[in-house]
Amino acid sequence: MSKTPVIFRPIGIIHSEHTNAERTPIQPVYARECMGQAEVFPEFAEGLRDLGAFSHIYLICHLNQAGAPRLKVKPFLQDIERGVFATRAPCRPNAIGLSVVELLRVEGNVLHLAGVDILDGTPLLDIKPYTAKFDRIEITRNGWQDEVDEKTASRRGKRGYSES
Amino acid sequence: MSKTPVIFRPIGIIHSEHTNAERTPIQPVYARECMGQAEVFPEFAEGLRDLGAFSHIYLICHLNQAGAPRLKVKPFLQDIERGVFATRAPCRPNAIGLSVVELLRVEGNVLHLAGVDILDGTPLLDIKPYTAKFDRIEITRNGWQDEVDEKTASRRGKRGYSES
Repeated sequence: MSKTPVIFRPIGIIHSEHTNAERTPIQPVYARECMGQAEVFPEFAEGLRDLGAFSHIYLICHLNQAGAPRLKVKPFLQDIERGVFATRAPCRPNAIGLSVVELLRVEGNVLHLAGVDILDGTPLLDIKPYTAKFDRIEITRNGWQDEVDEKTASRRGKRGYSES
Repeated sequence: MSKTPVIFRPIGIIHSEHTNAERTPIQPVYARECMGQAEVFPEFAEGLRDLGAFSHIYLICHLNQAGAPRLKVKPFLQDIERGVFATRAPCRPNAIGLSVVELLRVEGNVLHLAGVDILDGTPLLDIKPYTAKFDRIEITRNGWQDEVDEKTASRRGKRGYSES
């Protein structure tokens, strides 16, 4: 049945300098200087083979600190209420996080990363390579985000990170 | 605890022309002419507000026909075994699918889509806007995919779809 609950088991855990959700950058683009690691549990380490040749990867996480889901939210970048699926806000019906981070190197079962926008201790559910063939869409309409200028987006997206 | 299982509940279901996994294109880029719908269950429809102004969206699905997970797989595009996390193969430890599809229009709780590479009846877990600010990475190293020429990738990526 299409409404049957789905059970996933974490494949690893995120280590980062972000311990306060209120001061965590909202996306990798606002966290370029934030280093971190994805520690993959040893039983899955074999699945990391060949990953080190990709410069960017998707991390799919369980945002276990997201709080109660809401269907309407004010996104971090703008003070106008939007449908939650038109935002990347964490308080979604299923608290799934999606981040494109830079993969610096792979050491055994540990991925060293830059652009980490994820809270320390967040469970990791999946890793996928980001590839130009599949994921770089050249021309997009970006909805309400096109109303937000780069300077404002950068200031609000960092959530005080670079001023600390 | 970081290894605690995570439970998600589908927010909707995918409708597509793909009823045979063996003949389903492997990614939206090889399924441009494949139309489909994401039917969001009515209780979540309010979360779709403002989404129609985005041209592309991520669909995060539960690949419930993926079969047993494997840590090493031959990707669809190449006959060389790779670590599963260096591929987008469905047979992952957590069978999570990630597709960037084109959003044609929103009608109530139904999203009309192009570039659908997802099997009919697949449970939908989350929808996120794809945005140039967050998701378009201009320069990437693409690992083993850089070894596959476009013509071969297109032929193999369609999995016979366009020849049917």
